[in-house]
Amino acid sequence: MNDKYEDFKNLVPDYVRNEEDFKLYKLRHTTEHVFNQAIEEIWPGKIQRAIGPAIADGFYNDSRWEVAPTEEDFENIEAKMQEIIDADLPINRKDVSEEEAREIFKDNPFKQELITEFVKSGESLSVYHTGDVFVDLCKGPHVDSTGEIKAFKVLNIAGAYWKGDEKNEMLTRVYGTAFFSKEELEKYLWQKEEAKKRDHRKLGQQLDLFTFSELVGPGLPMWTPKGTILRDLLDQYVWELRKAKGYEKVTVPHITKKALYETSGHWTKYAEDLFRLQTRDGEEMAIKPMNCPHHTQIFAHIPRSYRDMPQRYAETTMVYRAEQSGELSGLSRVISITQDDAHVFLRKSQIREEINHIWDIVDGLYSTLGMPLEVSLSFRDLDNKDKYLGDDKVWDYAEAEMEEIAKSRNVEYFVARGEAAFYAPKLDFLAEDSIGRKHQVATIQLDLNMPVRFQLHCISEEGKEEQIFMIHAAIMGSIERFLSVLIEHVAGAFPAWLSPVQVQIIPISDQNNTYAEKLEEELEKNGVRVKVDTDSERMQNKIRLAQEQKVPYMLIVGKREEAEETVSLRYRDGEEVKDLKFAEFSEKLLNNIKGRNLDIKLN
Amino acid sequence: MNDKYEDFKNLVPDYVRNEEDFKLYKLRHTTEHVFNQAIEEIWPGKIQRAIGPAIADGFYNDSRWEVAPTEEDFENIEAKMQEIIDADLPINRKDVSEEEAREIFKDNPFKQELITEFVKSGESLSVYHTGDVFVDLCKGPHVDSTGEIKAFKVLNIAGAYWKGDEKNEMLTRVYGTAFFSKEELEKYLWQKEEAKKRDHRKLGQQLDLFTFSELVGPGLPMWTPKGTILRDLLDQYVWELRKAKGYEKVTVPHITKKALYETSGHWTKYAEDLFRLQTRDGEEMAIKPMNCPHHTQIFAHIPRSYRDMPQRYAETTMVYRAEQSGELSGLSRVISITQDDAHVFLRKSQIREEINHIWDIVDGLYSTLGMPLEVSLSFRDLDNKDKYLGDDKVWDYAEAEMEEIAKSRNVEYFVARGEAAFYAPKLDFLAEDSIGRKHQVATIQLDLNMPVRFQLHCISEEGKEEQIFMIHAAIMGSIERFLSVLIEHVAGAFPAWLSPVQVQIIPISDQNNTYAEKLEEELEKNGVRVKVDTDSERMQNKIRLAQEQKVPYMLIVGKREEAEETVSLRYRDGEEVKDLKFAEFSEKLLNNIKGRNLDIKLN
Repeated sequence: MNDKYEDFKNLVPDYVRNEEDFKLYKLRHTTEHVFNQAIEEIWPGKIQRAIGPAIADGFYNDSRWEVAPTEEDFENIEAKMQEIIDADLPINRKDVSEEEAREIFKDNPFKQELITEFVKSGESLSVYHTGDVFVDLCKGPHVDSTGEIKAFKVLNIAGAYWKGDEKNEMLTRVYGTAFFSKEELEKYLWQKEEAKKRDHRKLGQQLDLFTFSELVGPGLPMWTPKGTILRDLLDQYVWELRKAKGYEKVTVPHITKKALYETSGHWTKYAEDLFRLQTRDGEEMAIKPMNCPHHTQIFAHIPRSYRDMPQRYAETTMVYRAEQSGELSGLSRVISITQDDAHVFLRKSQIREEINHIWDIVDGLYSTLGMPLEVSLSFRDLDNKDKYLGDDKVWDYAEAEMEEIAKSRNVEYFVARGEAAFYAPKLDFLAEDSIGRKHQVATIQLDLNMPVRFQLHCISEEGKEEQIFMIHAAIMGSIERFLSVLIEHVAGAFPAWLSPVQVQIIPISDQNNTYAEKLEEELEKNGVRVKVDTDSERMQNKIRLAQEQKVPYMLIVGKREEAEETVSLRYRDGEEVKDLKFAEFSEKLLNNIKGRNLDIKLN
Repeated sequence: MNDKYEDFKNLVPDYVRNEEDFKLYKLRHTTEHVFNQAIEEIWPGKIQRAIGPAIADGFYNDSRWEVAPTEEDFENIEAKMQEIIDADLPINRKDVSEEEAREIFKDNPFKQELITEFVKSGESLSVYHTGDVFVDLCKGPHVDSTGEIKAFKVLNIAGAYWKGDEKNEMLTRVYGTAFFSKEELEKYLWQKEEAKKRDHRKLGQQLDLFTFSELVGPGLPMWTPKGTILRDLLDQYVWELRKAKGYEKVTVPHITKKALYETSGHWTKYAEDLFRLQTRDGEEMAIKPMNCPHHTQIFAHIPRSYRDMPQRYAETTMVYRAEQSGELSGLSRVISITQDDAHVFLRKSQIREEINHIWDIVDGLYSTLGMPLEVSLSFRDLDNKDKYLGDDKVWDYAEAEMEEIAKSRNVEYFVARGEAAFYAPKLDFLAEDSIGRKHQVATIQLDLNMPVRFQLHCISEEGKEEQIFMIHAAIMGSIERFLSVLIEHVAGAFPAWLSPVQVQIIPISDQNNTYAEKLEEELEKNGVRVKVDTDSERMQNKIRLAQEQKVPYMLIVGKREEAEETVSLRYRDGEEVKDLKFAEFSEKLLNNIKGRNLDIKLN
């Protein structure tokens, strides 16, 4: 039968971006059907299925169980699933009438409710058969037969309200996943396990990087001195890269009159995300959810000659977006979002060079952090052009220009139709972390609408008003989200240049405190972040504490080291270098920091 | 008769802080009476007086004039005033009944309205006689006779609504001032003239430091690249000074749940100044008007040992206070206030050392900028103790401690009763600018209440919970207000280290562009902010433009300079140094910048 991508494009979720994604999506959807068939065969008449969709990394099944399952049942279920897979049963779709559907699912109140719903909204009804033993009310898509499932796993159990509404019945949700190969499944399970160990929320607490407070509220992290060092160092590096490309810093407030967003179009387009407030005089205001409209006002406050172009404004600042508190999670999703934002105001002829410059900056940061990049060209949905602001021809031009640039850089890229912002096509960068997960990070948007809305011009060589363009570019994106990725990427063990404490000096006895403090002073003079642990704890304990804090370098100093002006260097992985001249250590350390090396080993 | 300070303390405005202020205040009030007497003698029956108070730098008179006066009348008025002064008429107070008052002012509807008002609020009525020719309904205070007025001037004319309400009649307001000596008056008039020339709003535009936008709203400046350089350099310097004293940076969001301010007490005490908002879930929130409550949450998120004390958190960030738009003015009063804020969490035994450290930092900044300091010990009003949060004994302790520190530093200080914050006594620093005006800048507050409200403790040597203290300290205060002062202090001609553009290179002809760019590159490599002006303008014009921008150093380079590797240095005051070796210029410049010299001259 063959469910085809082009037939399902409008049905599948956003993360299904191409043929390959679609295949995996179908596979997981079918695996869910196999799961459901298996449990009904094991516990006949005891389970009433509700829904069972594929999701980003697998599937889940919501059902009403007479006796809720436990993880001990998984082996049994998986064995039964394997039987169904081995039987290589064909999957067949059948369009049905309301009467037919009601008859097939006459004993299932959930399906009856869904049928009513679909009919009401004018949707057609279909069922999918697995061989001739299983049938489900289902819109698809599915693979052609159960034999295509080469690797699968039942993962865990949770509870879920019918239709996500807490006023409804609580059902049992079972999660699982499937792949086209055992290797991919293994990798996924390993990733999941690894991710749990390096969870940034856990590490954030262990390394004391940030904290939340009941009194302040969810989604509003407060950054400790250590966390602030990390944020500032990353921001400083991005600024260095930007400065070399001619950027200048600007500063704008966090609030504005409504008029600014009425002009930009955000007042209606962004309505739900805006925090609104009022001045004492009753003027309607909003907290900025982005900086671009404010930055246009700096560009526009004096006339600009073609000689002044481009103007490149950078500003790292917090923007605020009203999220539902249920959607907030650690640093991955917050309300107070620190953007390393920049806007370039430029002429048409400068687009390529400026985008290439930004791309260089993106490459600079992510290569330093050892994260390979992939690029998504997020273009508008050609079937829903009315969703986007601005002239159609201008969109065509912008999209073509961006694809040209991507081609010229010999990089892996794909076109993601429908992923554009409402005002601009985007280059979205995906960074791969050390356990193989991909995260959306930097973004470059070529904006063709805001400069028109704000009537931004420069005076051309001919003395005429020339319409200008605008680029939005964030390198880390949100520093909060970026740090959630980075902390997990390095599992909390930051490269030396980023480590909040770079060197921990551990005197063997009190008598070595003076020497330890001499070394501390020496290192501090060179800008190294160093601590001496003069607590009365035992040495082994001090080492354990420093290791827990993932301090890259421990210097253990005793009588002999003092006499010979050496140190015993201990890396955080436990490797030791004895009798290292302090001067040599210091020099190599400074080189490592200056070079922003990924590897902390000194050589 | 002699109106005494202690009898009028509750009647006079805040800026009257001591005997000396009081004397001047009385003098100006009496001068206003003399002014009123003079105009009534010149235009008998043509003027109906409304009110006439003393103000911070003089007085004003609001009256209904049959024919409005012009500045050409001032000479005439001043001559008549001088006659009254020369007559040395005694001033006498008389308490009167309502009937007496109504009879005296029977022809004056303004006075009748005031009498009704005073009687209603239970205030007693009094009049002041000048000799036996002039009488006014007046609460005082006044000097004893008109002869005490040694120097005065009528200044300018404006309009003002009766009682400040635009629904009322518009009256004529005439401003004037008075002093005890001609010299003081001369100085004041010179200051006023100078201040007009160096108005930071005018200079801010000329030097392109900041801008306002109709769309964003009043009180919300946006900082251009040049203005941002200034802000960042000042902030960086304060941070350097703080870092040397063991401070660490932290980062908090701009909003919070109401709960935080309920705990701190700001929710009610600061109610009018708060911008309120709501989350999507309907939770009540506010934009922070200060950082302290957030910072307590960083301190409190883990247990602190006495070994961890003090904790010193610095954060330069914008806070927001709802001001009436009529009160906003340039950078002096804004809604988006950038505070260079810091909080020290400390034990009682650490108070002196920490306050002294902060005082060192304050001295560091203001001496670098050439601004002498004076210190006000802002303590609570002993007659209104219930206005303040917290334990009375603790206030006594704190105020005594702060006065001890002030004494130990051999500095000019005065005690300003009633000037404390509702939660803390303060050290307020007044900086004197180059034209002799004094501005409140830095502040150190020893807070004894918030640590109690947030239950902030450390674990003492004995393993017990110990109540800690808290210091609030801003060095610049608000960067916006500070810059309004600094811009006027230096009249826009910043020292080299602060100048947005430090060096402007002006090639004599196109043929010298390459040499100019070589010098530019050389200077840029050393971090100097340098521009080359390769426009086709005439050289004299380029010099004029750079001078307008108050660029400290212009380097004029032609054929000879190129051949000899020299430059013609031109300072912004026009002084020239010919045939200066570029290497020598560069070295001296870097020293000047590094030393943060106030004087731009190189030697």
